[in-house]
Amino acid sequence: MSVLVAGTLALDSIHTSSEVHHELLGGSASYAALAAAFSGQVQLCGIVGTDFPQPHRDLFSRRSIDTANVDTVEGRTFRWTGRYHDDMNHRETLDVSIDVLEKFNPRLTTDAASASIVLLANMSPDNQLAVLDQCTASPFVIADSMDLWINIARPRLLDVMKRVDLFVINEDEAKIFTECSNLVVAGRRLLEMGPRYVVVKKGEHGAMLFGESHFFTTPAYPLTQLADPTGAGDTFAGGLAGSLAANARTPDFKDLARGIIHGSVLASFTCEAFGVRRLAELTDAEATGRTAEFRACTSWAS
Amino acid sequence: MSVLVAGTLALDSIHTSSEVHHELLGGSASYAALAAAFSGQVQLCGIVGTDFPQPHRDLFSRRSIDTANVDTVEGRTFRWTGRYHDDMNHRETLDVSIDVLEKFNPRLTTDAASASIVLLANMSPDNQLAVLDQCTASPFVIADSMDLWINIARPRLLDVMKRVDLFVINEDEAKIFTECSNLVVAGRRLLEMGPRYVVVKKGEHGAMLFGESHFFTTPAYPLTQLADPTGAGDTFAGGLAGSLAANARTPDFKDLARGIIHGSVLASFTCEAFGVRRLAELTDAEATGRTAEFRACTSWAS
Repeated sequence: MSVLVAGTLALDSIHTSSEVHHELLGGSASYAALAAAFSGQVQLCGIVGTDFPQPHRDLFSRRSIDTANVDTVEGRTFRWTGRYHDDMNHRETLDVSIDVLEKFNPRLTTDAASASIVLLANMSPDNQLAVLDQCTASPFVIADSMDLWINIARPRLLDVMKRVDLFVINEDEAKIFTECSNLVVAGRRLLEMGPRYVVVKKGEHGAMLFGESHFFTTPAYPLTQLADPTGAGDTFAGGLAGSLAANARTPDFKDLARGIIHGSVLASFTCEAFGVRRLAELTDAEATGRTAEFRACTSWAS
Repeated sequence: MSVLVAGTLALDSIHTSSEVHHELLGGSASYAALAAAFSGQVQLCGIVGTDFPQPHRDLFSRRSIDTANVDTVEGRTFRWTGRYHDDMNHRETLDVSIDVLEKFNPRLTTDAASASIVLLANMSPDNQLAVLDQCTASPFVIADSMDLWINIARPRLLDVMKRVDLFVINEDEAKIFTECSNLVVAGRRLLEMGPRYVVVKKGEHGAMLFGESHFFTTPAYPLTQLADPTGAGDTFAGGLAGSLAANARTPDFKDLARGIIHGSVLASFTCEAFGVRRLAELTDAEATGRTAEFRACTSWAS
């Protein structure tokens, strides 16, 4: 099945305590599309300026990602600059330049509109709804979001939640959104807002999946070297979406659980290098090997 | 196999945002012994004052815990008063009265000295070493500790670590002890300090087990109602020790992984009520049922 990944395409500048990198390929849709491309045929939807570097386009094409739905318009590509604190668990945004992102008015090709799995990666709820309105194939829809939209566009985000199958959110955002400090309770409250399933991402602590009558919880793959966690959540969502596309059936709860493992494994690679570098070089064999290793280090039943 | 549990016996007063309870049975050894008693024959070693309430002794005896190694001396039992913040993840100590604990000079009976599994629950490293010096049966030794001993008795704690098979510590303490913010790296550094295995407890996020060439990670059982987390870590260690005793063989890595699951399940019950109340009433069927439930909500391999 094909996956439509819609979200932001960005040029990121990233500071950690040991390194600084400028104008790396970034944005929710870049990570998510590269991750989804490991197991599905990906249509990428987003907007860039005329300054978007050709090597980034070449990378998408090398990974067989269809960019027919990437608009290129006059102006500068969306840019984000951020700095990670020593422990890598906290970051601050140093600068954001929205630029062409403000003009984003997604219009899907027939191919993209008929995708079976739709991932609305992190972007404004308005843009997410604009993509969703054009989907024609009753797809399985996943939406990711962030604290910004909870804070400034909550009503529209609630509209998104009513229309998606799976809503993905991180731990802190789930607590803020539901005003609840217990994550299990928070996850259930998010379910009541409309989605059939909810995933709460906990970073180094793993993830939880909530369904009406099912629950799944997993630790994260144990990383020792964390170079740059930017895009880990987007990679997770993309890996999950791609995994569902590989199944060629409407996803059930077990498919989602396996998708979470696949997304976690891909996200662990993303963290090992700056930007999309590790993901861009990753092989199927490496991903499969790490999945097996992850299974071994989480199994206890005799 | 029999389990020797040595640690503190206390009377705890606990404040949460909604309830206050005074002089509950507490202390590391109380929780640990009650948990270990689910699967092993337990010898309890500790010290109390003449004010120690008879109902607490009756509870130990109801759970077939041998108290021949509990000293009763003139004076007041060790008391601890603490308050939990709203999110239950942080607490402050309001008052500590050491009292008879200062006189603790463990002398083991022959039965206790020949236990096959020894749990040195949280108490001073000096007391842990005094117990260990008397053990005669080359037992499998587990030691738990806390930030206090890392801060004020680090050299003696390092002596303990060189002599135990399994060292148990919580997430924050592991980071402080090793001065390392990555938990996987911290766990490996703790291994280098002497123990054959290390468990890092992460509370609501589960636990990690480190061995020379093996690693295991698990999420926590998903609790929605957290009445009082006091003693959860002690329950975890006691449940783990008891589980090993049930195997009647020198524990291997898989036994420890299963022990961690058992300890986590028992700890989840401890959190559901104040003090040892839930643990004191818990049945085998409830523990077995929750373990099966935990297995179902953590499995993903098809």
